[in-house]
Amino acid sequence: MSSLRPRVLVLHGPNLDRLGTREPAIYGTMTLVALNERLQQRATAWNMALTLCQSNSEAEILDRIAGAPSKYDVAMINPGGLTHTSVALRDAICASPLPFIEVHMSNIAAREPFRRHSYIAPVVAGSVVGLGVISYEVALCAARQIWDNRHVA
Amino acid sequence: MSSLRPRVLVLHGPNLDRLGTREPAIYGTMTLVALNERLQQRATAWNMALTLCQSNSEAEILDRIAGAPSKYDVAMINPGGLTHTSVALRDAICASPLPFIEVHMSNIAAREPFRRHSYIAPVVAGSVVGLGVISYEVALCAARQIWDNRHVA
Amino acid sequence: MSSLRPRVLVLHGPNLDRLGTREPAIYGTMTLVALNERLQQRATAWNMALTLCQSNSEAEILDRIAGAPSKYDVAMINPGGLTHTSVALRDAICASPLPFIEVHMSNIAAREPFRRHSYIAPVVAGSVVGLGVISYEVALCAARQIWDNRHVA
Amino acid sequence: MSSLRPRVLVLHGPNLDRLGTREPAIYGTMTLVALNERLQQRATAWNMALTLCQSNSEAEILDRIAGAPSKYDVAMINPGGLTHTSVALRDAICASPLPFIEVHMSNIAAREPFRRHSYIAPVVAGSVVGLGVISYEVALCAARQIWDNRHVA
Amino acid sequence: MSSLRPRVLVLHGPNLDRLGTREPAIYGTMTLVALNERLQQRATAWNMALTLCQSNSEAEILDRIAGAPSKYDVAMINPGGLTHTSVALRDAICASPLPFIEVHMSNIAAREPFRRHSYIAPVVAGSVVGLGVISYEVALCAARQIWDNRHVA
Amino acid sequence: MSSLRPRVLVLHGPNLDRLGTREPAIYGTMTLVALNERLQQRATAWNMALTLCQSNSEAEILDRIAGAPSKYDVAMINPGGLTHTSVALRDAICASPLPFIEVHMSNIAAREPFRRHSYIAPVVAGSVVGLGVISYEVALCAARQIWDNRHVA
Amino acid sequence: MSSLRPRVLVLHGPNLDRLGTREPAIYGTMTLVALNERLQQRATAWNMALTLCQSNSEAEILDRIAGAPSKYDVAMINPGGLTHTSVALRDAICASPLPFIEVHMSNIAAREPFRRHSYIAPVVAGSVVGLGVISYEVALCAARQIWDNRHVA
Amino acid sequence: MSSLRPRVLVLHGPNLDRLGTREPAIYGTMTLVALNERLQQRATAWNMALTLCQSNSEAEILDRIAGAPSKYDVAMINPGGLTHTSVALRDAICASPLPFIEVHMSNIAAREPFRRHSYIAPVVAGSVVGLGVISYEVALCAARQIWDNRHVA
Amino acid sequence: MSSLRPRVLVLHGPNLDRLGTREPAIYGTMTLVALNERLQQRATAWNMALTLCQSNSEAEILDRIAGAPSKYDVAMINPGGLTHTSVALRDAICASPLPFIEVHMSNIAAREPFRRHSYIAPVVAGSVVGLGVISYEVALCAARQIWDNRHVA
Amino acid sequence: MSSLRPRVLVLHGPNLDRLGTREPAIYGTMTLVALNERLQQRATAWNMALTLCQSNSEAEILDRIAGAPSKYDVAMINPGGLTHTSVALRDAICASPLPFIEVHMSNIAAREPFRRHSYIAPVVAGSVVGLGVISYEVALCAARQIWDNRHVA
Amino acid sequence: MSSLRPRVLVLHGPNLDRLGTREPAIYGTMTLVALNERLQQRATAWNMALTLCQSNSEAEILDRIAGAPSKYDVAMINPGGLTHTSVALRDAICASPLPFIEVHMSNIAAREPFRRHSYIAPVVAGSVVGLGVISYEVALCAARQIWDNRHVA
Amino acid sequence: MSSLRPRVLVLHGPNLDRLGTREPAIYGTMTLVALNERLQQRATAWNMALTLCQSNSEAEILDRIAGAPSKYDVAMINPGGLTHTSVALRDAICASPLPFIEVHMSNIAAREPFRRHSYIAPVVAGSVVGLGVISYEVALCAARQIWDNRHVA
Repeated sequence: MSSLRPRVLVLHGPNLDRLGTREPAIYGTMTLVALNERLQQRATAWNMALTLCQSNSEAEILDRIAGAPSKYDVAMINPGGLTHTSVALRDAICASPLPFIEVHMSNIAAREPFRRHSYIAPVVAGSVVGLGVISYEVALCAARQIWDNRHVA
Repeated sequence: MSSLRPRVLVLHGPNLDRLGTREPAIYGTMTLVALNERLQQRATAWNMALTLCQSNSEAEILDRIAGAPSKYDVAMINPGGLTHTSVALRDAICASPLPFIEVHMSNIAAREPFRRHSYIAPVVAGSVVGLGVISYEVALCAARQIWDNRHVA
Repeated sequence: MSSLRPRVLVLHGPNLDRLGTREPAIYGTMTLVALNERLQQRATAWNMALTLCQSNSEAEILDRIAGAPSKYDVAMINPGGLTHTSVALRDAICASPLPFIEVHMSNIAAREPFRRHSYIAPVVAGSVVGLGVISYEVALCAARQIWDNRHVA
Repeated sequence: MSSLRPRVLVLHGPNLDRLGTREPAIYGTMTLVALNERLQQRATAWNMALTLCQSNSEAEILDRIAGAPSKYDVAMINPGGLTHTSVALRDAICASPLPFIEVHMSNIAAREPFRRHSYIAPVVAGSVVGLGVISYEVALCAARQIWDNRHVA
Repeated sequence: MSSLRPRVLVLHGPNLDRLGTREPAIYGTMTLVALNERLQQRATAWNMALTLCQSNSEAEILDRIAGAPSKYDVAMINPGGLTHTSVALRDAICASPLPFIEVHMSNIAAREPFRRHSYIAPVVAGSVVGLGVISYEVALCAARQIWDNRHVA
Repeated sequence: MSSLRPRVLVLHGPNLDRLGTREPAIYGTMTLVALNERLQQRATAWNMALTLCQSNSEAEILDRIAGAPSKYDVAMINPGGLTHTSVALRDAICASPLPFIEVHMSNIAAREPFRRHSYIAPVVAGSVVGLGVISYEVALCAARQIWDNRHVA
Repeated sequence: MSSLRPRVLVLHGPNLDRLGTREPAIYGTMTLVALNERLQQRATAWNMALTLCQSNSEAEILDRIAGAPSKYDVAMINPGGLTHTSVALRDAICASPLPFIEVHMSNIAAREPFRRHSYIAPVVAGSVVGLGVISYEVALCAARQIWDNRHVA
Repeated sequence: MSSLRPRVLVLHGPNLDRLGTREPAIYGTMTLVALNERLQQRATAWNMALTLCQSNSEAEILDRIAGAPSKYDVAMINPGGLTHTSVALRDAICASPLPFIEVHMSNIAAREPFRRHSYIAPVVAGSVVGLGVISYEVALCAARQIWDNRHVA
Repeated sequence: MSSLRPRVLVLHGPNLDRLGTREPAIYGTMTLVALNERLQQRATAWNMALTLCQSNSEAEILDRIAGAPSKYDVAMINPGGLTHTSVALRDAICASPLPFIEVHMSNIAAREPFRRHSYIAPVVAGSVVGLGVISYEVALCAARQIWDNRHVA
Repeated sequence: MSSLRPRVLVLHGPNLDRLGTREPAIYGTMTLVALNERLQQRATAWNMALTLCQSNSEAEILDRIAGAPSKYDVAMINPGGLTHTSVALRDAICASPLPFIEVHMSNIAAREPFRRHSYIAPVVAGSVVGLGVISYEVALCAARQIWDNRHVA
Repeated sequence: MSSLRPRVLVLHGPNLDRLGTREPAIYGTMTLVALNERLQQRATAWNMALTLCQSNSEAEILDRIAGAPSKYDVAMINPGGLTHTSVALRDAICASPLPFIEVHMSNIAAREPFRRHSYIAPVVAGSVVGLGVISYEVALCAARQIWDNRHVA
Repeated sequence: MSSLRPRVLVLHGPNLDRLGTREPAIYGTMTLVALNERLQQRATAWNMALTLCQSNSEAEILDRIAGAPSKYDVAMINPGGLTHTSVALRDAICASPLPFIEVHMSNIAAREPFRRHSYIAPVVAGSVVGLGVISYEVALCAARQIWDNRHVA
């Protein structure tokens, strides 16, 4: 299950396909395609293998998570609205041996009260929140270091 | 993106395919097919183009909403049980430039306490609640007037 | 108690006399006089008899509701601030054999948290919320259809 | 301020003018006129002077309470819906030197949750709840005994 | 199961054996023996058969209630502290065909917050609260009238 | 709408007509007449025109507020019990262009929990609380300074 | 719609495909395939026809429930994480004429607080919770008896 | 402490002596004697030794539980109203080395809100809820299997 | 009622008879018999008369407390699970002229949330919590000093 | 401890050193130095001795309050963020024989929900809130009158 | 790190320097100096080394706790108002290998509701509450016994 | 106020001086000195100027934040226990023109409930949580990118 360089799965949840047009005051103007390209460039520079996917379907995300352990070393997830509502997603992450990093572009602590509760945060390794596109980049940086720590120690 | 007559999308959420047999004391005895026919007749009479669809899948509804702005002028949605549980649906509506009208056949304020909380109500233009089949009809009437206001002013 | 055309009572609650000047960003710039005229025109066009009144006094509204069954077939009410605070108003509506339609111009679900609780919503036939002047118009449309349904069946 | 026989004020709050027709499953079929007659008969039999009034107006009830100490020895009040919403009524009772007995015909503890909270109960001498017309009769009986206790001791 | 005069069971719950010495500022100085005598005198005057008992044991009170229907027509209960804590007592009263009248000497609405919740109030016919010894007397008066109503109608 | 000296409206809400006799441990022994005289003397000394009125009627207070903008520059209000219960009063103040100063003689933060919630405080310019008669005097002082600031700047 | 032997539908919700590897301290080490085999053996022994399916998709589960009445007599469901979040699932069960038995392998009452709330429990016939694989077996036993009771009576 | 066949203790809590007459719409018409006979027949058929007892006394139930480990292998308990109120009962079960199965005839999740909280559920092995008499039967079935599992493994 | 040396009553509540075997990780391995012996030795050393009793019955504890004032100077109580559920026990302690010291062996603040609420703590003189057997010893020490203070001053 | 003119201590709490630059939309543009000068001018005009200090340290503020009674007659405090979080500050004010006036420049009732709770408000003599710099001035006016009242009476 | 006799650190938190003058009805009339002397006498009698300090500064208390493990065997702390507000203090105690005993002179369970929540209680070994000066003495007694237990075992 | 390379202030809050010995299961075994060295190495590699400080004193942290804008471009803060309790800290960050990044080594969402509420999160630019030492490193990486974005755009 180990590999020569870290294999990272990035899961974009519901509505993230609409980045760039969706509430740009909150989410910025970069599209998901552009964001994914930028992450791929970083991954190449940092010698990481990156798989990116987006889905509006909770079921598809659960299936992806179920199949991930044999293919990836670390997972990053921006669960979108499922963050606050999906126990099934929480259960899927709990059931996975992979370390997960939760990513949010907006500062969910500064928005509506219901966004302050997360079913996901307690079951991931860590979270990066509020930094827009930078949130993804530093999460990728963290994924790299988590993998390094495991392979050095 | 404008048109000669209002193009309206009507989204029926989970379980609405079972209208007519589902708890008739609450939802009445008219089937979804009959309801849709009646709405089409009204739309024809009022010179509106109506597209009707039903889905039990949150993901499919999100996809429909994402694709709607290029095809419709106004949207009506009866989110069914998603009303009370789906932040993803709320986010999709927020991300849309279309005006949405929320429709409920039953008086959700008079039922179980959990139905009194709606993730959807704060992000739609308005709501019509509790009037059975009439809820849809007057929402259609409202859609017509919203469109008229925008094209007159 | 029946009649040849629907007789509708419209009750405007506290502060609605100030429409047009009161927080126009929320309530628009049309005055109550102009709104009432517009509703009368609609009523004439739809062959309905409309009685309109406004009061800042809860007691006067209770008295109106008590006297309504012998004079009207349907009632529409915009309870204003009483929506969230008056059990007496709720009791009055419960005690009435008339169907009531609750009307709000602003989207109360999108405002302060205390506006999300309504003593009135659970005891009316239905509600139309958030569509400004259109809220009244489609409520009138609903009143017409409620009356039709009762006289056809 | 004393007298040869107890002078009792009975205040019926909002909507009690509709007794007999109002939700008879909850409030019974006796009208307010009939109830008042029955209470007057009891009062005569028990040598008490009874003044009865009903109002839908909180302000009028506050005025009545303010003027009561010079004319009455004991007060009985069925505050109706104000029970659960009026701090002003609570303040008026607190400000009065008269003993108040709160009366409810229906068992408010067995109805909607909001009826379980009372602004009035903590500031009256005592309460009689749930016994329909009997609630008033035994409250009258209690008024008699409160007066007796004060004039014997 | 009927009888020529009303047979009434009075149940005094935990700690009521200490009346007279227990917090006299709240409960007065009359002992339980004296209170019971006074109630017996009233019962004789009003042609009622009265059975009085006190117990600190929830189990004994449940047993009494289970055996009551064949021996009594009406029951009065001052559940003491069990008012706020015993679902078993509530269930026992629910399971009984007898009408129950709940009695409290102190005004429980004006004391600690936890006394404002009652498991018992929603399942009794009615309650008399806050009038000290008079609470019992007027409850007895109510018991008489409940019985009269049933035998007249 | 401007004037040579500040014109101030002082609104005393429900039960304030009973000042002096009402719970003197909380509200002091000065009557409303004496308080009003004292405020008039201050106003004269500070070159302010003062209009004082008291009402137990929410409707009358709403009417007064609706009519105030053409006659006054600043308003002071002691809403009494309406502070904690009236959304209609809040709406009326919101709808007014005048600056309002809320006044309470007692320290409402140190009394019953329900007095800690205020519908009014969030919509006034400021509040003076807990200083008895001095509360009114320093509110008057504040009204003077608000007016000065507006006419100097 | 009746049959010679009970036809039972067993619905396994999200993440149950991962039984055996998923948090074995909580869910045990038996895989879903093995569990299904064991249930089929029991069903054969008890003369029952068993249909088993698992899905991570809420929509697919709703569709299954909608189609069930014509094919099955009783349904068993382990809703997984949907237990705590899906009003749509609750609505689907409410809309069904079949008796449902809710099954949980883990003792959800002894886990995180959010698992103590269930949208499903109030609308099923009954629940079996906390007994691991035995939960399913005794639910099957219950399904048999429910069917027997209906065909004997 | 082991035995050749499972020895099971069945504890019926408060008010269960009244089965058959107690709220038959909720609890059915079978008496406790008949229920116990039926359970004994099952136990005989399944080669189990069954001890059945009922008590309205919390203390007696605590004593029974304390003495159980030397005499029984598994315990079944229907705690009645104590389910929602007794920390002492919870402590007693926690302190016992026996596996407990909680049984409820009615669906407590579908009744009053206070029945949704259970002190007992988190400390038992599992629960069977809502199936009337069948609840007991399948709990017995579960007890058999728990014992089998322990003696096979 | 005074005496030459302090007479102390120690009440052990429900389940404390099981000390030593009951959850030893929480309550330690010393039995109640051994604990009582140790307390008697301390009492002898400190010249105190000690009466020790344990009961699983709330009613018996209430009776003991009712009878205590004539026989003891100070009372110590470990109410076990009744701490969190018994208003009747609270009332009994309130009604007693004796000073009570509440004792808990485990640190109830560090356990389940429901153990953080105590009906007893607000009505005792003081509490000693979390120190295992030492909790009893220092409570005995405190009882000695309370008695000394009263007899010196 | 008395004096010829009122000696007033003004305590500015955490972050008030940043007035003028800190969120000017909320706190205005006047610096603390300028504010203090203005207050000194008022104090001179009104014949009051004013001591002003600011600290970000809760401990320093507690020390100041402890030392105040021998040096001052009245204290004014703007506790800044400590308003909502410091029980120690509340205790210090409670422990002081001086009257305290709480001052807030912003209308804390109109800001984040957590600012609506104050540990300080219930233990001060009174509060002036929301009037910017005027809040301090009228509090000074109030301090003068409190002192006058004490020295006249 | 061990020693021949127990070395105990006593930390008095904010406002305890004002003992004797601070709310004597709650905290008594003994000054901190006198209390400390008394504790030193006890410590000498019981062969313990006692270090006593008081601070109004949370930071100073955190520093003291950080430095304690090398100098003391047991710590006693009366955190004053920090009990209810300081997570930093809780963290400091958690981070320390020393056993802590929490001390309160007043019965915090019988005071304002906010005093019922403690950040400290769940992380100390045990607590002594409500016994005034005796609270400290018996805590010292407990410290002695904790040390003895560790050096005997 | 600009500079050639990003100047970053890192604030370590209360108890972080104890890293390495403090609850290593939660916070790891690296000391603060070692952590700071590692961060300095990274900063050098990434061409950043780093200032590191730790304080247990809220006041000192407030002072540091007040002085920061003239010396730094970005701030990183691990507020420790103040995260959950300090409105003053929140106010200081709000008042600062610098972007702040909140850092937590442990996953606060997976610990005690009170750690789920943060006064700080809503007012920072973003947060990095749960990744131990990596949290600081990726926050530094984010600081670099925030500065780059500002100097590129």
